[in-house]
Amino acid sequence: MVLERLQQMASHLTGQVAEHHPFDPLSTDEIAAAVEIVRREHNDVHFNAVSLEEPKKAEMMRWVADSEYTPKPHRIADVVCIGRGSRVFDGLVDLTEGRIVQWELTEGVQPLITMEDLQIVETVARKDPKVIEQCGILGIPPEEMHKVYCDPWTIGYDERFGSKVRLQQALMYYRPHPDDSQYTYPLDFCPIYNADTQQIVHIDVPKTRRPLNTAPPINYHAEAIKKEGGVRDDLKPLNITQPEGVSFKLDGRTLKWQNWSVHIGFNYREGIVLSNVTFNDKGNIRPVFWRMSLAEMVVPYGNPEHPHQRKHAFDLGEYGGGYMTNSLALGCDCKGAIHYLDAAFVNKAGEPQTIKNAICLHEEDAGILFKHTDFRDDSCTVTRGRKMIISHVFTAANYEYCVYWILHQDGVIQLDIKLTGILNTYALAPGEDAAPWGTEVYPGVNAHNHQHLFCLRLDPNIDGPQNTVFEVDATRGDGEPGSEQNPYGNAFYAKKTALKTMSTGMSDYDASTSRTWDFSNPNKLNPHSHKPVSYKLVSRDIPPLLPKKHSLVYNRAGFARHALHVTRQSDTQLHPAGRHVPQTSGTPSQGIPAWIAADPEGGIENTDVVVWHTFGVVHFPSPEDYPIMPAEGMGVLLRPRNFFDRNPALDVPASYSSTPSQVQAGKEGVRVVVDGLSRLAFGGGGEKPASDDCGCK
Amino acid sequence: MVLERLQQMASHLTGQVAEHHPFDPLSTDEIAAAVEIVRREHNDVHFNAVSLEEPKKAEMMRWVADSEYTPKPHRIADVVCIGRGSRVFDGLVDLTEGRIVQWELTEGVQPLITMEDLQIVETVARKDPKVIEQCGILGIPPEEMHKVYCDPWTIGYDERFGSKVRLQQALMYYRPHPDDSQYTYPLDFCPIYNADTQQIVHIDVPKTRRPLNTAPPINYHAEAIKKEGGVRDDLKPLNITQPEGVSFKLDGRTLKWQNWSVHIGFNYREGIVLSNVTFNDKGNIRPVFWRMSLAEMVVPYGNPEHPHQRKHAFDLGEYGGGYMTNSLALGCDCKGAIHYLDAAFVNKAGEPQTIKNAICLHEEDAGILFKHTDFRDDSCTVTRGRKMIISHVFTAANYEYCVYWILHQDGVIQLDIKLTGILNTYALAPGEDAAPWGTEVYPGVNAHNHQHLFCLRLDPNIDGPQNTVFEVDATRGDGEPGSEQNPYGNAFYAKKTALKTMSTGMSDYDASTSRTWDFSNPNKLNPHSHKPVSYKLVSRDIPPLLPKKHSLVYNRAGFARHALHVTRQSDTQLHPAGRHVPQTSGTPSQGIPAWIAADPEGGIENTDVVVWHTFGVVHFPSPEDYPIMPAEGMGVLLRPRNFFDRNPALDVPASYSSTPSQVQAGKEGVRVVVDGLSRLAFGGGGEKPASDDCGCK
Repeated sequence: MVLERLQQMASHLTGQVAEHHPFDPLSTDEIAAAVEIVRREHNDVHFNAVSLEEPKKAEMMRWVADSEYTPKPHRIADVVCIGRGSRVFDGLVDLTEGRIVQWELTEGVQPLITMEDLQIVETVARKDPKVIEQCGILGIPPEEMHKVYCDPWTIGYDERFGSKVRLQQALMYYRPHPDDSQYTYPLDFCPIYNADTQQIVHIDVPKTRRPLNTAPPINYHAEAIKKEGGVRDDLKPLNITQPEGVSFKLDGRTLKWQNWSVHIGFNYREGIVLSNVTFNDKGNIRPVFWRMSLAEMVVPYGNPEHPHQRKHAFDLGEYGGGYMTNSLALGCDCKGAIHYLDAAFVNKAGEPQTIKNAICLHEEDAGILFKHTDFRDDSCTVTRGRKMIISHVFTAANYEYCVYWILHQDGVIQLDIKLTGILNTYALAPGEDAAPWGTEVYPGVNAHNHQHLFCLRLDPNIDGPQNTVFEVDATRGDGEPGSEQNPYGNAFYAKKTALKTMSTGMSDYDASTSRTWDFSNPNKLNPHSHKPVSYKLVSRDIPPLLPKKHSLVYNRAGFARHALHVTRQSDTQLHPAGRHVPQTSGTPSQGIPAWIAADPEGGIENTDVVVWHTFGVVHFPSPEDYPIMPAEGMGVLLRPRNFFDRNPALDVPASYSSTPSQVQAGKEGVRVVVDGLSRLAFGGGGEKPASDDCGCK
Repeated sequence: MVLERLQQMASHLTGQVAEHHPFDPLSTDEIAAAVEIVRREHNDVHFNAVSLEEPKKAEMMRWVADSEYTPKPHRIADVVCIGRGSRVFDGLVDLTEGRIVQWELTEGVQPLITMEDLQIVETVARKDPKVIEQCGILGIPPEEMHKVYCDPWTIGYDERFGSKVRLQQALMYYRPHPDDSQYTYPLDFCPIYNADTQQIVHIDVPKTRRPLNTAPPINYHAEAIKKEGGVRDDLKPLNITQPEGVSFKLDGRTLKWQNWSVHIGFNYREGIVLSNVTFNDKGNIRPVFWRMSLAEMVVPYGNPEHPHQRKHAFDLGEYGGGYMTNSLALGCDCKGAIHYLDAAFVNKAGEPQTIKNAICLHEEDAGILFKHTDFRDDSCTVTRGRKMIISHVFTAANYEYCVYWILHQDGVIQLDIKLTGILNTYALAPGEDAAPWGTEVYPGVNAHNHQHLFCLRLDPNIDGPQNTVFEVDATRGDGEPGSEQNPYGNAFYAKKTALKTMSTGMSDYDASTSRTWDFSNPNKLNPHSHKPVSYKLVSRDIPPLLPKKHSLVYNRAGFARHALHVTRQSDTQLHPAGRHVPQTSGTPSQGIPAWIAADPEGGIENTDVVVWHTFGVVHFPSPEDYPIMPAEGMGVLLRPRNFFDRNPALDVPASYSSTPSQVQAGKEGVRVVVDGLSRLAFGGGGEKPASDDCGCK
């Protein structure tokens, strides 16, 4: 019976597997199959994650190079299960062969907290007598416990409880009405929840109590705004349409657009994963990046009062940027002509789940791509740019993170992140001063200082995997003004310093040299500049990690100690703070510091390297951020430098182009592309189509 | 006769004057009138500039506060004339009274070089025997002198010639065909032109000669691309329309949009000037900035070889960002529903000139303004933002600068600058290495390292003119991990340091503290946070001035020595490198250093101050930048912090909003604004309008 079923399943699987690109996320059928295969041998577990174990790079590079004659990598599921007593199992299921190929009990770790794990805490907390007692102290009677809410967070690390028991901390709030924002009514105590026993096991109560806030509600949803006088009526529609369709194509999950080709993956942890990113340079398909993802983040809060030190969420490693991703809506999150990709996950019970419209693919106008006017004769070329955006939005309790991977026609890759959502808030007693660790953003509401530090994992493939990373510093030339070598003191150049070994391959940001970093292939020189073909990391939002050396956050978030770490590529090194992040003590540090410690002399020059880049913002809240934050953006650029032999966007159709000869001959220039729809705002002599008005003069 | 004519003119003028807002640029009629008034007394001059002398701030603030009962400031023309022997006259003409009120001979200065000044040099150079001789040495026969071109630059400062004679340096190029980019064929010598005598007075010839480049032409205009295989055909139209019109209004040149009010000026020097910037905060008109402009810039090149040290153009002070501004075209420079403003200038002969469509006003979609989803029930609000853009583009010989002043609904003001156009290039001899001071971007073409440093003049008016500027540094709390006050080492706060006097009121950028600067009104506290109402300058593209201390550029560009200077407001201090910039030696330094030296102890706390912010980029060229540069952007943000008592954009209509109650009742949320036009890219079950698809789930 069992054998028969497995054979059925295997043949079923084979069909499934065959359809998929090796980088494709597991389908719902594959997830179901993996669960079924696990269940054969392990009936007493629930599922934390079932996700694609990506093919080994070496194997996959061979397949990419010659997919016709190279065996296709097996489809393998990376499985995390939790058994009784919080026992954690890490397994690999070969879906191509229909069998478990690895199954290990992993001691002393806690896998991430899923949405299901989070959802249950509020229900438990509302019924817990000690929580009810604490609410009573703050003036909330037992019959109002349905008005008490909690945002369950991972506990971070609490030395009193260690890592063996699976814990969450419950940040407590109150809602006068179900539609009121709870963040105006934070409660001052913090229960700790045991996920095994589904019980509140401890409550942290501050020495000085802070009563329930008495300020009136402040809300942002449409119903609330309606009551406060309604919405503004002076915003006219702005429509974005693509009547002839989009300029991109999808082959499975491989996106082709304006010479770019990129496979779009997605997993529960990192969200979007871009793989095998190449650029068609006049017929020559050139590798640029092997893999790109937002791999981790940490949000340390700056209030030293216990237990706020526990607020330093690793939103990807502790909850999962994929698990928390939003289902997006046409015309709301993105405008224009949109293609969505869904995301498939497993739930605790082992059932496949789908988030519809998890990833948004769309184009946007990008303004002027290039322009030049000859001042002699006003001959002019102006060309507008377009960009291709691959985005998702995830909600981490109070905060929203909007992640935009942007491809440009000139070979630039950009990662933009917008922060929005709601500030994490804490209670403030009457007369208490929120400064210096926070700001009173609304009466009785203390929003603590915090940072958002993101860790970008970049596996460069600059015309091949043999790459070197250089610090590039704008440096003054030798010789003072008046000297022979630098008579006017104006000499400066780009000083390039190669990062050489794992233990020395880190770099801090230095604004005083306008520091950037080049990912170069030293084996290939640009035909004109004779410099190595490179992509340059240009990143300016790089605050240092503010928690001090050897602090809890410093220990746990090793990746955040430097703007850049460079390691030798390893298929098993994907998670810069470790595979299982919740309740890690940071002693020893997981992830990057551990990998470096294991191979300090490992060379990172002219070899297959991975770059880990930490960037972000420091957020000192202010009332403008409340009750919902206007989006705050930041971004990172990867710019081709000495990679192409010329501007690779020269053949993008110009909006207008005239040559000096045409001008001299009194001819009109060439209107290659004009939208024909742009109009004068106030008419002004008839709303003529733009093609009659266009021209650089 | 004369009297009669003047009376006619005066009455004519009165009519003109009455129409204008005191901040409006001079109209063509006003320019004509000013010229006529000057000509009465000074017949032997030509005109360098006739521009609005802005009303004195004190007078204008009174008028703004109560324009009904306060006399309107006179219309005054600021006039720069050049007489015989390069004698410079600075004058003021009161147009309201129809008379010259100030007329001074200014010794030892050179006003900026106009487009007319530039145009003539090429003609003269082509006929100059010594230039013809030099061309011959490089292999260009005399009969090909029509193929020789030059970009005339101000000479910067050359100690051999000083400041008394009006000079330009001619950067020389060759075009095989009139439509070929000359920047591929730079000539290695540099003639110096005397504007008084209209003669080449000297030629700088390098010791090592560099022959004419023999590489084939490389061009970017449509005709050239056609020959090389044509434009790409896979870019589908992307249309942006506003069928119900725009959301902004103009009262004269005062723009009203989404609670903002701002007067849009323009002058030959700074280009766009924004004045009396206010925000309607729930009916309360709150001043934000009195005046904002890009006031100066310098582009130092990093090659120490003589005479390249002279390449450090002050594009605003030496040529004028207004004078060089482009006439913009619908659908080319901007898309959508556009309103243009023209610009009026004087020419050398005193005739008014108009640049049509000099300023572009338009709106753009700004993506997600704010969003939050409650993870418990998926109730969600998502609101899209809009931005208002006031832009112009100017061409400085080879380069293009695109300047975008952007207003946001959340009270943020953003200045974005895009650099495009063509690299300045120099000849490279066969076998010569362009490194380290430049890059060979194409065979035989050396593009030198350079910086673009912009100086932003900001006159803050944060709920009034009494403001203080603070350095704000993200700072770790006292106490090491384990200490009582900082047990987990996570404490951090915003350390604020007031700038106090003119001589100490400068600040450098410090990325290690994520430094920002607050412009605060210490006399008014936010009702919730109890912190002073403020706008925060967030700027991250701040390279240091790379020319060394006491170098020529350091001396001439005093503003670029620090990221920030703060001075006491003065009506006469508009130009940070001085009023007349060409051929200044920098000893002593003009502009900011001189003002500080004149009043070192001048207090800048809680008083009327002006902030000068220098930011920009370091550009190490690469072949991707050639033959035309894909636009490279940078930006500066001014963010309200503790200015509003809540998110000021709460009443922007949401795209979608649902409350927990609505979700629980199974009701749809409120679709307040959905464009109804967004579509699925690939159909997928019919192209349903977005309103059927919208929703956060």
